[in-house]
Amino acid sequence: MKLLTTYLKISTKGNTDIIDITQDVQNSLRDCSLREGQIPLFVQGSTGGLTTMEYETNLVKDIKNAFENLAPQNADYAHHITWGDYNGHSHVRASLLGPSLTVPFKEKKLTLGTWQQIVFIDFDTSHRNRNLIMH
Amino acid sequence: MKLLTTYLKISTKGNTDIIDITQDVQNSLRDCSLREGQIPLFVQGSTGGLTTMEYETNLVKDIKNAFENLAPQNADYAHHITWGDYNGHSHVRASLLGPSLTVPFKEKKLTLGTWQQIVFIDFDTSHRNRNLIMH
Amino acid sequence: MKLLTTYLKISTKGNTDIIDITQDVQNSLRDCSLREGQIPLFVQGSTGGLTTMEYETNLVKDIKNAFENLAPQNADYAHHITWGDYNGHSHVRASLLGPSLTVPFKEKKLTLGTWQQIVFIDFDTSHRNRNLIMH
Repeated sequence: MKLLTTYLKISTKGNTDIIDITQDVQNSLRDCSLREGQIPLFVQGSTGGLTTMEYETNLVKDIKNAFENLAPQNADYAHHITWGDYNGHSHVRASLLGPSLTVPFKEKKLTLGTWQQIVFIDFDTSHRNRNLIMH
Repeated sequence: MKLLTTYLKISTKGNTDIIDITQDVQNSLRDCSLREGQIPLFVQGSTGGLTTMEYETNLVKDIKNAFENLAPQNADYAHHITWGDYNGHSHVRASLLGPSLTVPFKEKKLTLGTWQQIVFIDFDTSHRNRNLIMH
Repeated sequence: MKLLTTYLKISTKGNTDIIDITQDVQNSLRDCSLREGQIPLFVQGSTGGLTTMEYETNLVKDIKNAFENLAPQNADYAHHITWGDYNGHSHVRASLLGPSLTVPFKEKKLTLGTWQQIVFIDFDTSHRNRNLIMH
């Protein structure tokens, strides 16, 4: 079994930017010698996370809203004392969501549901270039 | 190392139905050539999720209640404008919990704690037949 | 591909004790025959969880606070009727966070971000010795 570490570069706008990366992950299967298996995805960095969702504009708003309720941007965070970068909410949201997701594939195709996309969420406060690690 | 994609069909009642699937996952190890390894589990669909818990009636109530606090069923969701199926809360809960869980096993037995069961949670609004993917 | 099940013993203080286990996980790679791959981590027990974060004192406070908001310690939990051990909040927090995390490594080094550490969180109400399973 051959393992390939691939880095997916993602350019984000930050501020709980929710990005559909399904096609990028699907494309990475082209270079994979396996027809069947699973792809572990991992966010390098502590202000981003991964999950799946039905990727449509209105639900994107709902999910952003849910994270605002979970860890409001304007609440007090002790982390702000440490660095003064005012992204305490970004860290809390990212840690609650988690940085890892493992997606199975079969016949070289991700076994997602019809209305299920893989999303990377950048919770940080400004645009970034992010590294997502795929095996 | 041989990989087997297995589909576990789960019949649910929906409405944050929490189902103990530990025995089903354990049974799937019978057909596995490995004595030691890990089983990646994945929910096909965007309104279900996976985690572990002590599966007992009262805690099941508490976990349902926690999801109701996290994303209340009767809140306003923009997603309702898209399809009119009033399951915005189901999607939000599922995306926060996440669709993937990887459970190790040793000597053909899941290495769970004594009071730890694997649960599939169906957040959707009516009963469904769900596909859970196991490798 | 050789799989090794390793148990990491963690001594905790409980009460949402957040412990940086990055070095322990990194050390476990020494005994691994692979230079590149991923380590699936799994918490044995239903009141602990895993995630990553920037491990610094103030953010540790913020994350504890977020879990207190998510599932307050002094709320009513039906689970208390079952065992009378008053750790309903511990179970709810652990199930929401999840027991599994898969971390990639390359050249025998975990591919974490510079400000990203792996943490084990013990939500239970008193100190414990915990088993974390690594492959």
